[in-house]
This record gives sequence, structure tokens and C-alpha cells, in this order.
Amino acid sequence: MTTLIFLALLLNSPLHAEEAESWLPSLQTQTPEEGFQLALTLARKGVTETQGDPEVLHGERPKYSQDAESLIAASQVVATHFQTIAAANDYWRD
Amino acid sequence: MTTLIFLALLLNSPLHAEEAESWLPSLQTQTPEEGFQLALTLARKGVTETQGDPEVLHGERPKYSQDAESLIAASQVVATHFQTIAAANDYWRD
Amino acid sequence: MTTLIFLALLLNSPLHAEEAESWLPSLQTQTPEEGFQLALTLARKGVTETQGDPEVLHGERPKYSQDAESLIAASQVVATHFQTIAAANDYWRD
Amino acid sequence: MTTLIFLALLLNSPLHAEEAESWLPSLQTQTPEEGFQLALTLARKGVTETQGDPEVLHGERPKYSQDAESLIAASQVVATHFQTIAAANDYWRD
Amino acid sequence: MTTLIFLALLLNSPLHAEEAESWLPSLQTQTPEEGFQLALTLARKGVTETQGDPEVLHGERPKYSQDAESLIAASQVVATHFQTIAAANDYWRD
Amino acid sequence: MTTLIFLALLLNSPLHAEEAESWLPSLQTQTPEEGFQLALTLARKGVTETQGDPEVLHGERPKYSQDAESLIAASQVVATHFQTIAAANDYWRD
Repeated sequence: MTTLIFLALLLNSPLHAEEAESWLPSLQTQTPEEGFQLALTLARKGVTETQGDPEVLHGERPKYSQDAESLIAASQVVATHFQTIAAANDYWRD
Repeated sequence: MTTLIFLALLLNSPLHAEEAESWLPSLQTQTPEEGFQLALTLARKGVTETQGDPEVLHGERPKYSQDAESLIAASQVVATHFQTIAAANDYWRD
Repeated sequence: MTTLIFLALLLNSPLHAEEAESWLPSLQTQTPEEGFQLALTLARKGVTETQGDPEVLHGERPKYSQDAESLIAASQVVATHFQTIAAANDYWRD
Repeated sequence: MTTLIFLALLLNSPLHAEEAESWLPSLQTQTPEEGFQLALTLARKGVTETQGDPEVLHGERPKYSQDAESLIAASQVVATHFQTIAAANDYWRD
Repeated sequence: MTTLIFLALLLNSPLHAEEAESWLPSLQTQTPEEGFQLALTLARKGVTETQGDPEVLHGERPKYSQDAESLIAASQVVATHFQTIAAANDYWRD
Repeated sequence: MTTLIFLALLLNSPLHAEEAESWLPSLQTQTPEEGFQLALTLARKGVTETQGDPEVLHGERPKYSQDAESLIAASQVVATHFQTIAAANDYWRD
């Protein structure tokens, strides 16, 4: 029992990057709108993976989310990811 | 007539953030010109999704819409989205 | 008749972007050189659509057209649009 | 004879944007190396088409050709054009 | 045992630029999530290959990992690499 | 012998832009890792072709190779070239 509890704690420990459920199981979405949401997710993930510390991230958010240049740069990242996801879904053509 | 005017006002009202209809039902457009308009929509959406507060957005708009560098950066985002939409429509080839 | 005039005024109102002739009827061009010209057109359109006021645009033009960084950034937008147009024309291969 | 000389001068005159020979007759090149040279040509053309005045261009050249950030930005434009040309030549695969 | 320890130290020694195993044996990954991790790897590799000195790299890391603009720019590089890897894996479509 | 030495010097002379061997004979590489190295080569070539003077280049290198923003921008150029080379090699799929 102790071993099981130990394993459970180990697997759920924040030291393990590998979560039980993937944050990105598939690039397939039902609609273009969901595809755009996924592009936003991927864009944000690129930022959080580069800067792991949530405090720094939250400290920076007011800055880039209020700066015109940063907003446009963020929109560019979304555009690139959306391009990938759209191709992955064959442009949601019927 | 009154009903029609009422409906017209209702549909154009900015107070309805959540439409019954998706804002992006499809990447298909009839013409390249409409495709370009859709690219503009997607570019703007990337900005509004990053910065949800309309006050901040409207505060920043005068700034980036008057700055040469930001105008060009915004045009780059549109270019990326237009590339996606053009591919989605098979370049509107007859 | 009143209704028809009303509709005509409504449709021709400057609030409607739809012009009689499209500025972008097709992505097809006869030559790569014309394709490059079209890429320039699309790049400029992205800027004018973001900043609708011609006075602001003309005020900014001297600035970005004399600044090295902005010139290169503008060239990047053209490159992206040219990539799209080239693909649309199957690279003008015989 | 005078007519011929006159025509020659007319055609070579910088006042005529339309040259007798196209500067971009094709995207096809014999080798990847020539393709890279063509990418450089297209990148430069994007700059010269945005800023038509040769004096301004030559005034800016020392600036961006000595600034690290501008050099890298210029290399990015070349990369995008090279991507297009490589695809146009089917990557020069035998 | 001593030989094994010696070999382990030798292989892990930073003095050997040429590792026994390639750092990029394949673009194929089992899942999109792993593909995203590989995109992060490629993005970082581009930085380390440009600046070989680990001291400089570690000196810069706090700077760019705390700056909103740099975080977004880094996310853009990841997006481009992810686009490549997604295509390489045919978008992990079943 | 003197002729051979003379020829060797001539061919290696920096005054001859046209080398006997192309610096880019092919986009084909055996492995993804070599493909990444080729991407680095292309990225650097874009810089050296824009700024021909080696003194200026070497003067700038310390600057951009120590600046976080420039390092990321350089990584972006590499990413674009790697995307091209990966496609050229059909992603090194077996």
C-alpha cells in the first residue's frame, strides 16, 4: 500500500512533466473555431514552456497584453499555429 | 417595418459578445476578396483573444494603427492568415 | 418605391465595403513579375485595411519608407504574399 | 537612325517602369545556388519597390547592412523567398 | 567498473561536441505532444548553435525568459518548427 | 609545380566570387541532423550575402550572438530554412 501511495505521489509530483492525460492528444478539431482555440493553446504553451516560472509569466502578462507590438506578435504566433491546424484538418472542408 | 428595424438594431448591437452562430463557421469564401476580409478577421481575433479587455484594446488601437512598424507587423499577420485561407479555397481556381 | 430607394441607399452606403468591382478578382497572373506586383498590392492592402485613415497612412509613409528595419519588415510581408501567389499559379511552370 | 537612337534611349530611360525584359521571367533555376541568388534578388526587390527613391535606399544601406538585427531580418526575408523558389523547382531533386 | 565509470564520464563530458548518438535521429514522434517537445528542442538548438558559449547563453537566459517580447518571439520559432514536425508526421492522423 | 601552386592560390583567392565547387550543390542530406546543419549554413549565408564586408560581419557577431532578441531572431531564420530542407528530403521518412 505504501508503495502504491508512493507511486501515486511520484507520478503526480510536479517534478514529472508527463501528465496522466496529454494536453495535446490530437490536432483534429470539429470546427474551424475550435481549431483557432487550439492555436491559441499552442501559442500560449510555447511561452509557458520557454518560461517555466508562473510568477514571471504572470508578471509579464500585463505588459505584453497591453502593448500593441506584443499583441500583434502574439497574433502572429497564433496565425502560424492555426495554419498548421487548418492543414491538419484539411481545412474542415466537407 | 418596426420589427425589421428592431431586428437590424439587435443584430448590429455590440452588446452581444456571444453570438448564437460561430464567428468562424468555415474557411470557404466565394472570392479572394472575401478571403482577404476573413484573414483580417482572423488577425484581429488573435489580438482580441490575447487581450480580452475591450478598454485596453481600444486604448491600444490608436497607438498601433498610427505606428509604421506596428502597421507592417499587423499586415504580416494578415498575410499568414490569407495564406491559410487561400490554400483552404484551393486558391479560388476555377 | 420608397422601399427600393431605401434599399439602394442602404447597399451603397459607405458603411458597405462591397464595391462594384473587386480589387482582388483572382490570384492568377500571367507572369511571375505580375505575381510579385500583386504581392505588393496585398501587402499594402493589409496596411490600409488596418489603418483606414488616409491622412495617418500618408503621414506614416515617409517614416517607414525611410527606415531600414521597416523596409525589411515590409519586404517580409511581400515575401509571404508572393509565396501564396506563386503556389496559386503553380509557380508559373510551363 | 535618329528614331532608333531615340527608341533605345526611351526604352532604357529610368522613367519607364516597364522594361523590355522582365526582371523575373521565371522561378526556375538550374541549381540550388542559383535559387538562393534569386531569393536574394526577390528580397531586395521587395525593399526597392517599397522605397522607390534610390537616394533614400543608398542612404539606408550602410545602416541596415551594419546592424545585427537588420542583417538577421534581411536573412529571414531571403529564407522565405528561398522556400518559395525551392518548392517551385521541386527542390532540385534529380 | 572503473572503465565503465570512465566511459560514462567521457560520453557525458561537454568537451566532446560529437556525441555517439545523434541529437536529432528522426522527425517522427508518437504523439503531437512529443512533437511539440521536439519543436522546443529544435528552437533551442538554433539558439545554442548560433551562440556556442554556454556562459553567454546562460547569461542571456534570464533576460529573454523574463521579457514579454522575447518570450513571444521564442514561441514563434517553436511554432515554425512544430509546423515542420506536424507535416513530417502527417499530423498524427490515424 | 609553380603553376599548380599559382592555380591553388587563384582558386582560393577571395577575389573570385565563383568557386570551383558550389557551396550549395544540393538540399539533400542523409540525416535530419545534417539537414539542421545545412539550415544553419543557409541562415548564415543570407547574412553574409547582405553584408559582404567580413570586417563588419565580425564586428557585429559579438553583438548579435550575445543579445537574446537577436539569438531568437537568428533561430527563426534557421527554422524557416530547416522547414524547406525537411520538405526537400521528404522529412527523412524511411
